[in-house]
Amino acid sequence: MKLIRYGAAGKEKTGVIINDIKYDTSAFGEDYNEQFFENDGLSRLKQFLADNEGKLKQVADGERLGSPVARPSKIVCIGLNYKDHAEETGAALPPEPIIFMKSTTALVGPNDAITIPKDSVKTDWEVELAVVIGKKASYVEEADALDYVAGYCLHNDVSEREFQIERGGTWDKGKGCDTFAPVGPFLATPDEIADVHNLRLWLTVNGQKMQDGSTSNLIFNIPYLIAYTSRFMTLLPGDIISTGTPAGVGLGFKPPVYLKPGDVVELGIDGLGTSRQELEAYVKN
Amino acid sequence: MKLIRYGAAGKEKTGVIINDIKYDTSAFGEDYNEQFFENDGLSRLKQFLADNEGKLKQVADGERLGSPVARPSKIVCIGLNYKDHAEETGAALPPEPIIFMKSTTALVGPNDAITIPKDSVKTDWEVELAVVIGKKASYVEEADALDYVAGYCLHNDVSEREFQIERGGTWDKGKGCDTFAPVGPFLATPDEIADVHNLRLWLTVNGQKMQDGSTSNLIFNIPYLIAYTSRFMTLLPGDIISTGTPAGVGLGFKPPVYLKPGDVVELGIDGLGTSRQELEAYVKN
Repeated sequence: MKLIRYGAAGKEKTGVIINDIKYDTSAFGEDYNEQFFENDGLSRLKQFLADNEGKLKQVADGERLGSPVARPSKIVCIGLNYKDHAEETGAALPPEPIIFMKSTTALVGPNDAITIPKDSVKTDWEVELAVVIGKKASYVEEADALDYVAGYCLHNDVSEREFQIERGGTWDKGKGCDTFAPVGPFLATPDEIADVHNLRLWLTVNGQKMQDGSTSNLIFNIPYLIAYTSRFMTLLPGDIISTGTPAGVGLGFKPPVYLKPGDVVELGIDGLGTSRQELEAYVKN
Repeated sequence: MKLIRYGAAGKEKTGVIINDIKYDTSAFGEDYNEQFFENDGLSRLKQFLADNEGKLKQVADGERLGSPVARPSKIVCIGLNYKDHAEETGAALPPEPIIFMKSTTALVGPNDAITIPKDSVKTDWEVELAVVIGKKASYVEEADALDYVAGYCLHNDVSEREFQIERGGTWDKGKGCDTFAPVGPFLATPDEIADVHNLRLWLTVNGQKMQDGSTSNLIFNIPYLIAYTSRFMTLLPGDIISTGTPAGVGLGFKPPVYLKPGDVVELGIDGLGTSRQELEAYVKN
């Protein structure tokens, strides 16, 4: 299945994509959130779709897409998980996964604008494969880890490099600004993806190719990341683990290249669709 | 007001403390969560208490206390915010606040057990004053920042120093383990605290005084921390900012001293009550 959430920000309705057509599943009566995943929502939704075949209403063209999953308890991100990206940032290859956290208030829809924070001069892009957790995961064995996956999504792990690296403390300061986590267009359940470790992922800025990698080059693969992360914190249903970005981020250019208002970022992963964000300056509400 | 949540973990009911007696406020009909704070719950609760004076049922003795606030969208912590603690860890005084995040799955009640994670040998304590946010805060001015405070709580920012410092990446790996955020016994609204920047805070391990400080020694004070944090992420109602710990953590001893199963940690802050946690080894469920 391919799950979507659509409509006005904060008031999203649920839906699915079948044969490239978006259908409303509001009648299912549940948001795609922690409770949904925890209570076997994916199986129940599948049954709902079977029971309602041919009866679902199409989603009107032009509807905004939200994040395909509701705000989770946490967004855990993995740093420097592609060899080429670690090299471009000048960092050593990590001996074990680097974990940092993204404020969940950063979550937005796949085609929403990215707001450049006030006083920011180093807003950067990172195309990433995000894993959505399907059931509570604590001290999971690597061999069992894929049983804990609800699905996969495209994610732009937007990052403010000055806030992240030059302002003291941990990376979290530069990762969780509002709009810094465009997720979607959809969540694909694992059966939709033949080999999650062999997906091309790419990103362009104003049409120019900046990132072009493959999940086959992940240093730590998805089962390892789930098992590893679950030793440091319990992952709840609906939680997101974003698995790192390949080479080609703005920080890696010499001199570095950062985003400015009006720039357009487009990104995609094989089987997980594409997204598009226009950059805008912060304006006080 | 002093707000409590009590009862079985995950099924807490709400209450208040009036003249040292705990009363149930279930009839108010709302948990102390994001929606409560967002929708002026504190004012409405105050009115409810006035309307029900003398009619509230006492909470039975021996009831477990939960965190006085429901799981928030985020727990933001400030590192090295007391001069003496920065010195004991060998760290330079930060030129601006250090921000890291604690997984919200770490949240437990004030007297719940602290579980030493599997393979952990460096579980440590940190008494802290936690600020609970009362309304959505983004780019808040320091002069207005206290308007965004719902109240204050006692917090033990439990930390695994090997996970935090020696396992690569950011501090988050050693801060968000399950049970690593005992909060409470109660949330005190600001009117309960004469001067939040002049509160003694202390912590003992097995009866021995380890930390004994004062919030008068905060490097960055509470209005500054709220304003500062709100420049990097939007704070939601119910979110927690934990403001750092004074000297006397286990890491600061020569050689360092860490917690082991059976140890008892007790801590307190003037006007915010005391809490007590017994340490237990991780046991696979």
